[in-house]
Amino acid sequence: MDGIVLTPLKQIYNVKGDIFHIMKKSDDGFYGFAEAYFSTINKNVIKGWKQHTEMTLNLVVVIGEVEFVLYDNISKEFFTVCLSKKNYQRLTVRHGIWMAFRGIDEKNIVLNLANIEHNSDEANNLGLDEIKYEW
Amino acid sequence: MDGIVLTPLKQIYNVKGDIFHIMKKSDDGFYGFAEAYFSTINKNVIKGWKQHTEMTLNLVVVIGEVEFVLYDNISKEFFTVCLSKKNYQRLTVRHGIWMAFRGIDEKNIVLNLANIEHNSDEANNLGLDEIKYEW
Repeated sequence: MDGIVLTPLKQIYNVKGDIFHIMKKSDDGFYGFAEAYFSTINKNVIKGWKQHTEMTLNLVVVIGEVEFVLYDNISKEFFTVCLSKKNYQRLTVRHGIWMAFRGIDEKNIVLNLANIEHNSDEANNLGLDEIKYEW
Repeated sequence: MDGIVLTPLKQIYNVKGDIFHIMKKSDDGFYGFAEAYFSTINKNVIKGWKQHTEMTLNLVVVIGEVEFVLYDNISKEFFTVCLSKKNYQRLTVRHGIWMAFRGIDEKNIVLNLANIEHNSDEANNLGLDEIKYEW
């Protein structure tokens, strides 16, 4: 689906502690850095739908497991992926794509590296039932 | 201590899930973005000493609690701080400062937002006993 990139990331294991890659500025899917923040999402809770008109998201699941559902309202396509430590990938979501996401484990933390600073004016919101999806 | 900045960060609580601020490019302590990665550190394990000659670190503890010890080998000063969700601050460490850090909880995860990409040539390492500190 256009506007979405999944990038497998390296996990480097070591007896003292591990290293998990997230993003380099030379990576595909890097559109500049303006803000980083964590979102937590409780078990079985769904946040969404939200569409950014300027922000490109780069998402990594730090703890737990999260199901992301993306919707392109021009092609009417859905794309879904569950990310976790086991399926450790970066999800790049270009502006214009609708997104909702659901917490699967007891504790779920998502990191977003965004190309613009948070600005509620550039986001559109819809109720969960306004884009039909079988969760 | 010169070369170190501690910045308290906002935590926004919500019934569906929370938001934890990390960094904006307009913040003090932002020296450019080139790479983000997570490090885990096991309980009672100490990683260090390490000195970066070019990289400025911006560190946030995502999970658990971590004790950071910084050492300026010109002024011979030490600086120490424990960061966690309870003491949620960003620790900016300019290049030139020596650092070691210790895992306190069972599970500890540190996020680093760095101004250059990883390059082992720009880091110096010393054994833990080569800079005397009472852990």
